[in-house]
Amino acid sequence: METATLLCSCDDRSGIVAALTHFVAEYRGNIIDLDQHTDSREKKFFMRLVWDIGASALSREDLPAAMSLVAKKFTNMKWRLSFGSPLPRIAIMASTAPHCLADLLLRRQMGELPGEIALVIANHEDLAGLCQHFQVPFRHIPASRENRAEAEAEQLRLLREYRIELLVLARYMQVLGPGLTDGREGGIINIHHSFLPAFVGAKPYHQALAKGVKIIGATAHYVTAELDQGPIICQDTAPVSHRDEVEDLIRKGRDIERRVLGAAVRLHLERRVIVSGNRTIVF
Amino acid sequence: METATLLCSCDDRSGIVAALTHFVAEYRGNIIDLDQHTDSREKKFFMRLVWDIGASALSREDLPAAMSLVAKKFTNMKWRLSFGSPLPRIAIMASTAPHCLADLLLRRQMGELPGEIALVIANHEDLAGLCQHFQVPFRHIPASRENRAEAEAEQLRLLREYRIELLVLARYMQVLGPGLTDGREGGIINIHHSFLPAFVGAKPYHQALAKGVKIIGATAHYVTAELDQGPIICQDTAPVSHRDEVEDLIRKGRDIERRVLGAAVRLHLERRVIVSGNRTIVF
Amino acid sequence: METATLLCSCDDRSGIVAALTHFVAEYRGNIIDLDQHTDSREKKFFMRLVWDIGASALSREDLPAAMSLVAKKFTNMKWRLSFGSPLPRIAIMASTAPHCLADLLLRRQMGELPGEIALVIANHEDLAGLCQHFQVPFRHIPASRENRAEAEAEQLRLLREYRIELLVLARYMQVLGPGLTDGREGGIINIHHSFLPAFVGAKPYHQALAKGVKIIGATAHYVTAELDQGPIICQDTAPVSHRDEVEDLIRKGRDIERRVLGAAVRLHLERRVIVSGNRTIVF
Amino acid sequence: METATLLCSCDDRSGIVAALTHFVAEYRGNIIDLDQHTDSREKKFFMRLVWDIGASALSREDLPAAMSLVAKKFTNMKWRLSFGSPLPRIAIMASTAPHCLADLLLRRQMGELPGEIALVIANHEDLAGLCQHFQVPFRHIPASRENRAEAEAEQLRLLREYRIELLVLARYMQVLGPGLTDGREGGIINIHHSFLPAFVGAKPYHQALAKGVKIIGATAHYVTAELDQGPIICQDTAPVSHRDEVEDLIRKGRDIERRVLGAAVRLHLERRVIVSGNRTIVF
Repeated sequence: METATLLCSCDDRSGIVAALTHFVAEYRGNIIDLDQHTDSREKKFFMRLVWDIGASALSREDLPAAMSLVAKKFTNMKWRLSFGSPLPRIAIMASTAPHCLADLLLRRQMGELPGEIALVIANHEDLAGLCQHFQVPFRHIPASRENRAEAEAEQLRLLREYRIELLVLARYMQVLGPGLTDGREGGIINIHHSFLPAFVGAKPYHQALAKGVKIIGATAHYVTAELDQGPIICQDTAPVSHRDEVEDLIRKGRDIERRVLGAAVRLHLERRVIVSGNRTIVF
Repeated sequence: METATLLCSCDDRSGIVAALTHFVAEYRGNIIDLDQHTDSREKKFFMRLVWDIGASALSREDLPAAMSLVAKKFTNMKWRLSFGSPLPRIAIMASTAPHCLADLLLRRQMGELPGEIALVIANHEDLAGLCQHFQVPFRHIPASRENRAEAEAEQLRLLREYRIELLVLARYMQVLGPGLTDGREGGIINIHHSFLPAFVGAKPYHQALAKGVKIIGATAHYVTAELDQGPIICQDTAPVSHRDEVEDLIRKGRDIERRVLGAAVRLHLERRVIVSGNRTIVF
Repeated sequence: METATLLCSCDDRSGIVAALTHFVAEYRGNIIDLDQHTDSREKKFFMRLVWDIGASALSREDLPAAMSLVAKKFTNMKWRLSFGSPLPRIAIMASTAPHCLADLLLRRQMGELPGEIALVIANHEDLAGLCQHFQVPFRHIPASRENRAEAEAEQLRLLREYRIELLVLARYMQVLGPGLTDGREGGIINIHHSFLPAFVGAKPYHQALAKGVKIIGATAHYVTAELDQGPIICQDTAPVSHRDEVEDLIRKGRDIERRVLGAAVRLHLERRVIVSGNRTIVF
Repeated sequence: METATLLCSCDDRSGIVAALTHFVAEYRGNIIDLDQHTDSREKKFFMRLVWDIGASALSREDLPAAMSLVAKKFTNMKWRLSFGSPLPRIAIMASTAPHCLADLLLRRQMGELPGEIALVIANHEDLAGLCQHFQVPFRHIPASRENRAEAEAEQLRLLREYRIELLVLARYMQVLGPGLTDGREGGIINIHHSFLPAFVGAKPYHQALAKGVKIIGATAHYVTAELDQGPIICQDTAPVSHRDEVEDLIRKGRDIERRVLGAAVRLHLERRVIVSGNRTIVF
């Protein structure tokens, strides 16, 4: 089935759903999935709309212009139209820990992720073999304080060369500079190994142990300029006890990190996430 | 805010969402919430639509007739229109265990349940004081094999007298006869103290212990003629271990039963549940 | 069955378990349950030991002196010996929200809590009827900035009069002064309505909404001089979404608060919790 | 640290813990971890004891004989003594689905599993590359109704050749014959993709969809002669909704299967599981 997916937001008023679903029906589209949300405090409207365009009177090429005309009827409408193909292109940045990277590669192989993992960039060489097994290009760019500027330039060059839409930080142990984050709002997903906002920053499992919490967690969020403060997409938790040493928290945490990051990437690729201020709408 | 809530299902085709949202907009309703689902295997369409009728050109009294006309455009459309008031009237049947009954009464008191608990019927007298505290009428109808027919007649009489829409079995330890269940499809909610379809019938916690499961659960479902087989609304689980004796399973189970039953009753009262064959759509 | 329960901690060395279990066997006790933990970083040993004293050669009265002799063999041993009766006496402090108080009263009624709820103190009168239903003495002590000293004096007087061992803050919306907390380390349990250390202080659900978290939680902890910083006994979480307004978070949170507080009080009463610095060992 | 781990069970009586911990202390062992359980219905005693044998007066070689003498003091004592090395040798059987196999290989690589994955046997060739990447021997033995006897003979030969202690069925889609299961009680772990005892047998996710459950699960259990009926080691669940098609259940199920199987294999290798009748004690 050939589908179009619309993600949009605008100031709330009456008739938005009717107008947009009428727009679809008018050109002989058949709605497959519709989810909407009204933020009554902020008076904002959000919608995700998926429709079958197999019998559409409008071609893929003509749809954006038509949608553009509809959007003008509403105040502050932001919208994005996606099609099932070509698949969004993903780059993954990693360091030495294999679990998140292996998980994403495996999910992609099993067809769970509607995107193409086009490139892996790592600041260590440990994960080259893993990428080779999954037949994904691997680039080693050592990153340290001294060479940050060059490294970032090279990373940027690769993201352009590989036409990357989504960047995923799969336990990449470096802070990204503004050169990478600017202009990529809602385009970089990071996995933080704590239940944010608890335990921001380095060594969250050590922090958790010191605090004596009985539950640990992980948080997938979009990267913004401020460390570990971007809009949260997905979180999960697991129980721990006084028996758990730091190594146990790290081990248990890996399971949470993997499923939270995998879920967040999937939600993003399925066009289910809209960023609204510092929060996300996840349809 | 004065709202109307439509729950409907029909054979799938294109244009249903557009027609219904157009219907709302046409009469100056403002959509608050819309959720829809297409069962592509069964080719069935389901929708829940909530709209603000404060500025509606159609009065509450006129809406059903207008909706009726819209419904005729679609094949096999079943629909139900509800308004925020008057609140649906609920009867709860219980035996001796207080936890589910107390939980529902407390939730109602705290404003979690958009319904009125109009009556409690019990086959024992133990829970009379609890009902008195919450100022809900309590009727004691002893139920045994011998007096089943009379008991059921009296129960039916009360359900009519109190104009009961929803009947909730809050650990009521008797099987309802056809006199009570016939004509009440989707109108009786039971809590079964296992993760159905595991451990149907009596003493599920004893069954769970004997089987050595590591997780127990509870299931809220609509009552049908067949014991513990009706459409499932809500389920939840909790971990157990080899240390748990039957009494521990019963204790842990009570926590699950309470929150599962409370959630199911709330979903039903908020008009979020559509029964489709032996399954439920829960918006 | 008549049992003794020992909770103890000391500096780690070899032979502790052997010495203590030998002590039990020597006087014809039969071990029912034993759980121990070694904190290898802190080099501390912790144990909970439950034994049948039905055939014991030592009476309840003589056991403490005998245990005292055993304890002297170990460095820094702290220990506490409890018996199944008399039950520990509990006071609950509450304000207006009924859910945590009702839950504890119900759990006690159903036999889940091995303690006696001897007294409820509230700074509002709303919950008097609930206590009356459960036949628990209710005392209303208005508490405000102005009368803090007198209120605290009266609270203290009641805790002494009712010989209270455990004080439970069941959504009591006042900070306790040092007059109440001093000397009650590990003797006051509070339920905080967030997943600590996230969202310390007032209005945590509002904080959670503003932050856009996808999971909320609750934390039962012992009260110390520092607000919301005492040793954590029990935590749990539940998923939330962009659809949840503050009222939804509050409602969902109530379910978590109830089960977390109920679990913590039960663990405490069953003598399963040892405080070690700012953490707890929960056997 | 060099440790010994004892798993034992016997008829309950007083003094067992004292005798065993005395045995350890007598030969200058230092107890690291002790967990015990008394099944009061069956009057059986179970214990797991880990101690440091670095300063032991008894060598590894002499410990079993000494333990043997202790065991004779108790009725029906079964015991097993394990040391940290050599690591238990594991064979994994798989078919075409990579997720469970990849997960176990990755966990082993990251040091989560105290065992050596010595061999992978598959009835298809799909997973050969994965094993090559993780440098684990891969053997392809086609298995069908026709060649069952030869296939089983070859499998048995390999298990002996590789001196396999634990056999793990990682979504191996064939039923094992008695030639493989006889004499391996408690030595074969299978992952079943449902929350047993619900949905025994083939296509459990299809069964779950048909039943309309709101939660799915997975079960790791020891294999016995009767299909999907062996003692359960570990289970977990995840919520599903009316939106989930069979493919979604399969996808969500993979996440549960992986973590449940990984946890069960780890618990087994850490010598934390004792089979008692058709149930397990998991320390």
